[in-house]
Amino acid sequence: MPLTTSQLEAALAHADAALPASLDRLRELIAIKSISTDPAYAAECRRAADWLVAQLSTEGFDASARPTPGHPVVIAHGPQVAGPTAVFYAHYDVQPVDPVELWHTDPFTLTEKPQPDGETHLVARGSSDDKGQLLTFVEACRALRAITGTLPVNVKLCLEGEEESGSKNLAPFLASVKDELAADIALVCDTDLLDASTPSITTMLRGLVGEEIEITAAAMDLHSGMYGNAARNPNQVLAEIIASLRNPDGSVAVAGFYDDVAELDDITRESWSRLGFDGDRYLRDVGLSLAAGEQSRSVLEQTVSRPTCEINGMIGGYTGEGFKTVIPAKARAKISFRLVSNMDPDKIRAAFRAHVRARIPADCTVTFTEHGGSRAIAVPTDGIHLKQAREALTAEWGNEAVLRGSGGSIPVAGDFKRVLGLDTLLIGFALPDDRIHSPNEKYNLTSFRKGIRSWIRILAALAA
Amino acid sequence: MPLTTSQLEAALAHADAALPASLDRLRELIAIKSISTDPAYAAECRRAADWLVAQLSTEGFDASARPTPGHPVVIAHGPQVAGPTAVFYAHYDVQPVDPVELWHTDPFTLTEKPQPDGETHLVARGSSDDKGQLLTFVEACRALRAITGTLPVNVKLCLEGEEESGSKNLAPFLASVKDELAADIALVCDTDLLDASTPSITTMLRGLVGEEIEITAAAMDLHSGMYGNAARNPNQVLAEIIASLRNPDGSVAVAGFYDDVAELDDITRESWSRLGFDGDRYLRDVGLSLAAGEQSRSVLEQTVSRPTCEINGMIGGYTGEGFKTVIPAKARAKISFRLVSNMDPDKIRAAFRAHVRARIPADCTVTFTEHGGSRAIAVPTDGIHLKQAREALTAEWGNEAVLRGSGGSIPVAGDFKRVLGLDTLLIGFALPDDRIHSPNEKYNLTSFRKGIRSWIRILAALAA
Repeated sequence: MPLTTSQLEAALAHADAALPASLDRLRELIAIKSISTDPAYAAECRRAADWLVAQLSTEGFDASARPTPGHPVVIAHGPQVAGPTAVFYAHYDVQPVDPVELWHTDPFTLTEKPQPDGETHLVARGSSDDKGQLLTFVEACRALRAITGTLPVNVKLCLEGEEESGSKNLAPFLASVKDELAADIALVCDTDLLDASTPSITTMLRGLVGEEIEITAAAMDLHSGMYGNAARNPNQVLAEIIASLRNPDGSVAVAGFYDDVAELDDITRESWSRLGFDGDRYLRDVGLSLAAGEQSRSVLEQTVSRPTCEINGMIGGYTGEGFKTVIPAKARAKISFRLVSNMDPDKIRAAFRAHVRARIPADCTVTFTEHGGSRAIAVPTDGIHLKQAREALTAEWGNEAVLRGSGGSIPVAGDFKRVLGLDTLLIGFALPDDRIHSPNEKYNLTSFRKGIRSWIRILAALAA
Repeated sequence: MPLTTSQLEAALAHADAALPASLDRLRELIAIKSISTDPAYAAECRRAADWLVAQLSTEGFDASARPTPGHPVVIAHGPQVAGPTAVFYAHYDVQPVDPVELWHTDPFTLTEKPQPDGETHLVARGSSDDKGQLLTFVEACRALRAITGTLPVNVKLCLEGEEESGSKNLAPFLASVKDELAADIALVCDTDLLDASTPSITTMLRGLVGEEIEITAAAMDLHSGMYGNAARNPNQVLAEIIASLRNPDGSVAVAGFYDDVAELDDITRESWSRLGFDGDRYLRDVGLSLAAGEQSRSVLEQTVSRPTCEINGMIGGYTGEGFKTVIPAKARAKISFRLVSNMDPDKIRAAFRAHVRARIPADCTVTFTEHGGSRAIAVPTDGIHLKQAREALTAEWGNEAVLRGSGGSIPVAGDFKRVLGLDTLLIGFALPDDRIHSPNEKYNLTSFRKGIRSWIRILAALAA
């Protein structure tokens, strides 16, 4: 049900006028200590879900907290209208607050901190990740309903309580409500702006293959004075295998690794060229100056559109204080691959294992442990919903919304695609300096206000 | 003062007849819980030293417990006689007994356990390492004095109480009694027989260089989804450095590493050829089948006469349960080199550090921590004392005493050489299956009895 221009303007004005009330509601939600990973806070997670159900119910949603083996998922259906259907996802759970002594204010009390540049920081656990982002959408619906009595499109909400503890119940839950959540597009609010004044839509997410390998040489730890040289040292074997995974030019040396890697499409490449991304600065900010990956690729490509092979952990032998002259029996490593394009997790895993096995001496053994596997997500850049949302964001922020990739993996996008058959528009208003997962997490008041306004415009645009 | 043949025979017979009394004395010494590494047992270490002083004093030694910053060293001087002077070293401290629940009998109660093959195991902490070995020499002196009223050579004893906790006070102590311990040869009883019926003299000990390296890349741990490829991964850098330390032929790839490595001398080579050492079996016993070191060298050479480079420990990133997609800021490794011949610890350390530094990317840093350095020890194989001791051992055991190298490092031999200018004859009667440092440590009764008899013959031979 498309909005008139004056309805849209009225909804935006209503949202601005209601901002103090919106902040009060954020304050209430923040105060609920919904730390999902700690069983001690299970009742708080339940309370957060109930709070959301109550809020949504007063706003014309048919809302309920659905049980899972873990914390509940809030499902809510907006008024039925003519037009497309969007499923909105965010999560109401938060990270633990340790180390609590590093917080300057109480983590569960939303504290407004004016900044020298005129911005106001909303400081609290979950202000950015993800309670603030979640409420941008709910408050947008509230403003639209205040003006029009309904919503411009069919809206279904899916608000998770276990995102910070692995989302292990989400995919089975989605499968159980597959028909109920039938929709045209998924909207997820858990990502960043490009910068404080530039909106973005994340259209690429890398997939992930996690592998753990354990190499066993001798039947027991040996004394390096007695067995040095002659006994195979699994630390050495493991190091040689790890070293063999990268070519001198920074590319990954596993056979066939790049077979299914596509080059960027023209729309994405064009959008990226206007990102103003400074690879040198990106590295400098973390104390580095040399890009370590494929030397023929930019830092942006290396971190977003090219596949990776990273050693996330390795251990073998004596690693405590002082020294022990041991040749250990075993050495272990955790290795992850980020996948892009059409790379198949199973194929990459098999190629990696073959690469490793070919380098295991005949009297050593290797065991592999799988730590998950997912394909990359690519949202078609020529879809109508993407185009509509992009124009809406551009209108709100005054700067063109960019299409970007994220080097990370947001599993819910994969779940929506795989379980519900939906493409996802990842649109968020957080900033890289929001200190999510860390003490003194904040969300800019501008992110909150313009986030609400952005969703008003997007929902209106999707109805057009 | 040379012995007559009948005096020697009488001393040997006396030792055999006195064996029950010798075992009672071993039982007394074992019962003293002289665990040097645990401050809770300091009084017990003192008590062990006092017990030794008392025993030696009744046997005509001028004995005293000398204070050090740690546990005392027992110094004892035998009767002055014409002839050469030998300094005997052993240690009265023992390893902790944890895990005590794995002991089948009380660790501090000497338990005689008859074996199916007729042997008797003397089971207790320190029975082999080193209280049993220490008493073989004291009991030999007792038997000789019982028959001759004196000793065939001048004997000085130096009995340490901190060998199991690093011997950190020994070298300074030796320096403080340098003149008092002036001698012609040092005797150390802390090593193994070649097998249950073949005595040996250890003439080569490898030196040791211990190094710890820490490689730092980014200023903090990074998310591998955000920084993978582009950010240098110190695990990868460390693995590549470790891999670069060995050539494909198994040799160590550090420049100049083999410059000061000598080939075996003829006497040692000839003795080794008759060792009957089975390299395949040596590896098979620990579950391996392929010698990993220099492919042109035998297992015996690899483990005894060739220098090593071993990765004793390495760690970086997340190594706990499950998976974390981190690119760590740092990775560490502990690396040791066993040295032979004239290899200079300082030179090897410098060459290693240069090798590492050349492989550190420009935006990473490396720090080095030194964990000790000592030269290899080689006792001249053509010395008169060695020849005399070898003949005495051969006479006692009926099998020719072999000259052997040990891949390990026994620091006291280096201290005797460096501080006192003495060559050391390393002669011991332990066996590889004595479970030293482990639960249910044992010493064969044959080792104890023939150890006493061996020292009687050796002291007699040194006087000839």
